[in-house]
Parts: sequence; structure tokens; C-alpha cells
Amino acid sequence: MKNIDEIIGKLKFDEKGLVTAVAQDHETGEILMLAFMNAESLRKTVETGQAVYWSRSRQKLWHKGEESGNVQNVKDIYLDCDGDALVLKIEQVGGAACHTGHRTCFYRKLQDGELVEVDSPVFDPDKVYKHKGA
Amino acid sequence: MKNIDEIIGKLKFDEKGLVTAVAQDHETGEILMLAFMNAESLRKTVETGQAVYWSRSRQKLWHKGEESGNVQNVKDIYLDCDGDALVLKIEQVGGAACHTGHRTCFYRKLQDGELVEVDSPVFDPDKVYKHKGA
Repeated sequence: MKNIDEIIGKLKFDEKGLVTAVAQDHETGEILMLAFMNAESLRKTVETGQAVYWSRSRQKLWHKGEESGNVQNVKDIYLDCDGDALVLKIEQVGGAACHTGHRTCFYRKLQDGELVEVDSPVFDPDKVYKHKGA
Repeated sequence: MKNIDEIIGKLKFDEKGLVTAVAQDHETGEILMLAFMNAESLRKTVETGQAVYWSRSRQKLWHKGEESGNVQNVKDIYLDCDGDALVLKIEQVGGAACHTGHRTCFYRKLQDGELVEVDSPVFDPDKVYKHKGA
């Protein structure tokens, strides 16, 4: 993609140099996860066509799926009105975005004052990850 | 909803006391906007059945649509794996969530190195708002 630096210049990064990124299944519309991007991770995402986030816990670039193989192929990227949030329309390889093995990180629902698990795991994280994290 | 304080106790608010909330159309799955909630705004959202956010710019509770009439009726609330993000499945009254008059705040797409507007406004913000902001 040309001019990515021009687009990056229009983003409003927060005091930590980050914008929020929402990953959404490009076919079903299901929201799979929420993560963060700095300028470099967005550049790498556009260059490679796969989601590269900024890991706040590890303080480094996080090529999603680098360990599990569950990469995210990016179909489209949308920017919000005030330039501090992105929506990534993605194809989730392996069928699960969450490090818990669930398809979506949003697998718990508030229901009658309880948090109810509404989705079963697709994989067993103990078998997929050598280290903790997605 | 009972026990909302118990659920609030499970959330991981950031250093400003906030979690991220993604508003998604409950029927189409379209992501409409991204905003923030503190404990009180989540409590009010559950109590009233309408989205109440925390406005970071105004530093106060923000009953979405209080001025424009474009309130968000909340159908379901989902919590993510690490407890710092919510998805609100909502019905958007008035058809537009964005203060620019667009249906979604994510109305610009990265396309061939350009930011392209891919959605037309539903209303004229100058006619809807007396003050700036949604």
C-alpha cells in the first residue's frame, strides 16, 4: 500500500503512541478481539496483509498467531471519525482468535446478573502454546 | 440486573478507571463506534437499558443520544477474556451513531494508500446538535 505514512500521519495516537484496533470476522461480522497498534505495527500489517499488533504486556510487536499459527489475514481496514480507532476485517486462520481457545475473546455475556460463558473453546490452549499469550 | 457490582468487580479498569466498549448493531453486526466506560457508566447502562459512556473529553457521564435523540438501546453485553473490553449489542435509534451524521464512526476505509469515505451521512449534524459532540 502506498502512502501508508500519510495515513499514519492522520491517526491520533494516544500518549503511549497507540490506537485501538478491533478485529472483526470479515464474513460473519463477529467481533473477535480488541488490541492495540502503534505506527510500526500498522505499517507491518499493511505490508504483510496479516494483523500485527503492539503487545502492551510484552512491550513489543506482536504478529498475531506467530506461535499458535492462528494468524489473521486482513481484508480491509477502517478508521473512525476521530482517528484513534481501527476496525480490521479479517479472516481468522484456525478459527479461534482468543488465547483461551475460544473463537472470540468476547465469549462471556452478562445475563441476569451473572457472567455466562456462551461459546465453547475451539482448541485446547495447553496444546497450542508453549508460552502464555496469543 | 442483579449483582452488577459483582460483575464490575471482575472488570480490569485501566489507570483512568475505564474499559473500552465497542457498540455493534445487534442485527447487522456492523461496528458503530468505540467508547469508554467507568464503573458508574456501566451500572447506569445496565439500569437504564441504554448506553451510557464516560466522555474522556468532557470528563463526565455521557448518555449517548441525550442531545441528538440517537440513543442506543442495549440488547446484550459481552465481556472479553481479560476483562478490559466490552461489546454492546445495540439498537441504534435514529440510524446513526456518529456525531458526523454517519451510521458508523468507521466510515473511512484504507484503500490503495488513500482514506476513502465509504458511507454517506444519514443526517446533517448542524441540524441535530446545538453543541459539538454526540
